Amino acid sequence: MSFNILVLCTVEPAERWREPLRRALPDDDLYFDAAEVASEQVDIVISDSPPQGVWRQFSRLRMIQSLWMGVDRWLDDASLPANVPVTRMIDPGMVTAMTETVLAHVLHAHLRHDVMRRQQTQQRWRELFNPVAAQRSVGIMGLGNLGTAAGRALAALNFQMQGWSRTRKDLPDVRCFAGESELAAFLAASEIVVCLLPLTTATRGIANAEFFGRMREHSVFVSLGRGPQVVEAALLAALEAGRVRHAILDVFMEEPLPPAHPFWTHPRVTVTPHCASMAQPESGAQFVAENINRLRAGEALLGVVDPVAGY
Amino acid sequence: MSFNILVLCTVEPAERWREPLRRALPDDDLYFDAAEVASEQVDIVISDSPPQGVWRQFSRLRMIQSLWMGVDRWLDDASLPANVPVTRMIDPGMVTAMTETVLAHVLHAHLRHDVMRRQQTQQRWRELFNPVAAQRSVGIMGLGNLGTAAGRALAALNFQMQGWSRTRKDLPDVRCFAGESELAAFLAASEIVVCLLPLTTATRGIANAEFFGRMREHSVFVSLGRGPQVVEAALLAALEAGRVRHAILDVFMEEPLPPAHPFWTHPRVTVTPHCASMAQPESGAQFVAENINRLRAGEALLGVVDPVAGY
Repeated sequence: MSFNILVLCTVEPAERWREPLRRALPDDDLYFDAAEVASEQVDIVISDSPPQGVWRQFSRLRMIQSLWMGVDRWLDDASLPANVPVTRMIDPGMVTAMTETVLAHVLHAHLRHDVMRRQQTQQRWRELFNPVAAQRSVGIMGLGNLGTAAGRALAALNFQMQGWSRTRKDLPDVRCFAGESELAAFLAASEIVVCLLPLTTATRGIANAEFFGRMREHSVFVSLGRGPQVVEAALLAALEAGRVRHAILDVFMEEPLPPAHPFWTHPRVTVTPHCASMAQPESGAQFVAENINRLRAGEALLGVVDPVAGY
Repeated sequence: MSFNILVLCTVEPAERWREPLRRALPDDDLYFDAAEVASEQVDIVISDSPPQGVWRQFSRLRMIQSLWMGVDRWLDDASLPANVPVTRMIDPGMVTAMTETVLAHVLHAHLRHDVMRRQQTQQRWRELFNPVAAQRSVGIMGLGNLGTAAGRALAALNFQMQGWSRTRKDLPDVRCFAGESELAAFLAASEIVVCLLPLTTATRGIANAEFFGRMREHSVFVSLGRGPQVVEAALLAALEAGRVRHAILDVFMEEPLPPAHPFWTHPRVTVTPHCASMAQPESGAQFVAENINRLRAGEALLGVVDPVAGY
């Protein structure tokens, strides 16, 4: 059985995926332009960030595959059919990419390269004496695939690792905290806090004024989960108060970050354009093909999204 | 036998070393202020960066211990006694610190955080699609203690590793190049080049116009060895030409970097104030004590500097 598959990229260049997907799915019909196929003939849609309301036109969909890991925005779309499985990307390359990003930002904060950068803008030469990683505590929020891999990589560099998750986890070399009641203790123990949480009703606005008030003085906050987890006004206040020395933000309440937003020019904020972890086409296409072949064989799909949990 | 030891810090705060050295050398007399001890009574000087001509006043010196790894400037001092061993710091903490710095800068360059930083100054939102480390080649110049440790750490993150040294080395997971004749091939194979060489007559000015001309287009140059290895005008020209996308510089021809220097304000240059790798007082004091106890016991000293080789 061969499928009609529409690849609907709105952010990523579709070119990135064309050859890897063609190679991974040689027997299916792949369309990279919606004009090339009648919507009622489409069996599967693969997308990075589908436009709101797009789903109404597809009458015989059997599966919706995300190219990205987070699908929180998809679930807000009333046109999303309730009886079609939505599967998110589980790409080992994406986990690797996120681990590399976390390592880069944590090492940057650990070695106070943000402070050196500010000194450069002031043309000020002042040596900084940093401890080694073994004397630096780092906390990761979210201990799923991404958080577990990042925590392991940071522990391998000898950072003192903390982790926080909604439900209790048990990881080697990571001191694990769980639930709302242990969030304050987790924050008090972490000089650098990295958020990798999925967006759910429980994590929306989690980084609020009380949260930043619990962080250590001069700590660094790295936001790589989802924008609505951070109360942006509370973060700006914590930066002004010196509670947070520096914030590294990849995700925002509104994306692209609007031109007038104070984060763009804030000397203690690093803005990256929501690309902490992109799926890697070679390994990502393998995962997508595996899932589509499972659909073909009538087997259980991987990464099926639970619309109640939100991920 | 107990020694009179003068700790002469001109850059580092002496406070950093006081307690670790006292604990490591409980039976010696330690002075942290030259006014506290007659210079002809001093047996050992420990220093970070001694002032030129300082050595003439010490008539009974038996050993000179550097707190830093590089002693090239010391050897230019005509007052340095030829018959007193100069020993450089071999601190495992310093090797760890340098490895962390190399990881931070290489990951920054690999993930194009320098490009994202420039986009932020332009308030420009544009996603970047980076490969993973396994698809990125990194070259390290200098394969002594520091280069070997950094190469191993980068290889553990799956970077494609190259190394270059004056004499041929053989390292696991690192493709090794040697000598002047293989420098061009090494540069052609490396997207990110990290210099960890010691300063010698052979490495002075090694990063010249020809060197940058051999680098790959849009590569990143990270200078963590010694300032005089880089022909600064040639680097500026390579940055203008786009040959070098970004330069991360910790060492300079003149330090502190003079106020009017173009590196301070160049959008494609990161300036850090010569602190890529500071000795760690706890482990560093252990090494110093070990060496002083060897002197006391008449045993061979560690890290003795060869004034001809320059390190």
